[in-house]
Amino acid sequence: MQFDHAGIATDDAESLADLFSDLFDAPVAHEERFDGMTVVFLELDDGYFELLEPHDDGAIGRYLDKRGPGIHHLALATDDIQAALATAREYGVELIDEEPRPGAWGHQVAFLHPKSTGGVLVEFVQH
Amino acid sequence: MQFDHAGIATDDAESLADLFSDLFDAPVAHEERFDGMTVVFLELDDGYFELLEPHDDGAIGRYLDKRGPGIHHLALATDDIQAALATAREYGVELIDEEPRPGAWGHQVAFLHPKSTGGVLVEFVQH
Repeated sequence: MQFDHAGIATDDAESLADLFSDLFDAPVAHEERFDGMTVVFLELDDGYFELLEPHDDGAIGRYLDKRGPGIHHLALATDDIQAALATAREYGVELIDEEPRPGAWGHQVAFLHPKSTGGVLVEFVQH
Repeated sequence: MQFDHAGIATDDAESLADLFSDLFDAPVAHEERFDGMTVVFLELDDGYFELLEPHDDGAIGRYLDKRGPGIHHLALATDDIQAALATAREYGVELIDEEPRPGAWGHQVAFLHPKSTGGVLVEFVQH
């Protein structure tokens, strides 16, 4: 699989986007309001930062309250998300999303439960 | 810059390497004992997972005690780590490493302090 993005929980996506784009030469590639959050994608040479600023008490808002800002998840790109989920099921991985669902930027996404994957919240994404 | 790897703190690198290599089609590319840790690199199509299992109470051991297993840092590859650090200094970013130092796999590395970068521990790496 291919690295797609690292999801970053933040309480100020605009400031962090300004800083990261300068520090890491990672310009803004996409921005939208999605699922109660400001979502900003910054483009690396081979993947993205996804900055997530919540405007409600959804999953990212609760994460910020509990853990503070920082790395929230890692997303891996696949061209067959159903097959990737089937493999995860075979290995007994608990799925947060049994079926792919619409994610930011119009992609199909599905999350694996971190308790099955060494504490790492993994997202499969199919563009 | 280019995504290089995501560093994962774990108390069982061997089991996690087995699982991730199967789930994510990411075979073991390199393994070594480094700085009191077992370090395993799993190869994605465009970057790596770096699994870090500490055998002492160094930084990763303390991180595991405090936060539990999971994503520890994000590493970005540059072909001029000194220039990358100079840019970070210009922007007032606090550096953990003022100068590059030898990291795992023979690379030169330097870490930025997460309090300057939205809670994200960022490593610059030059191969």
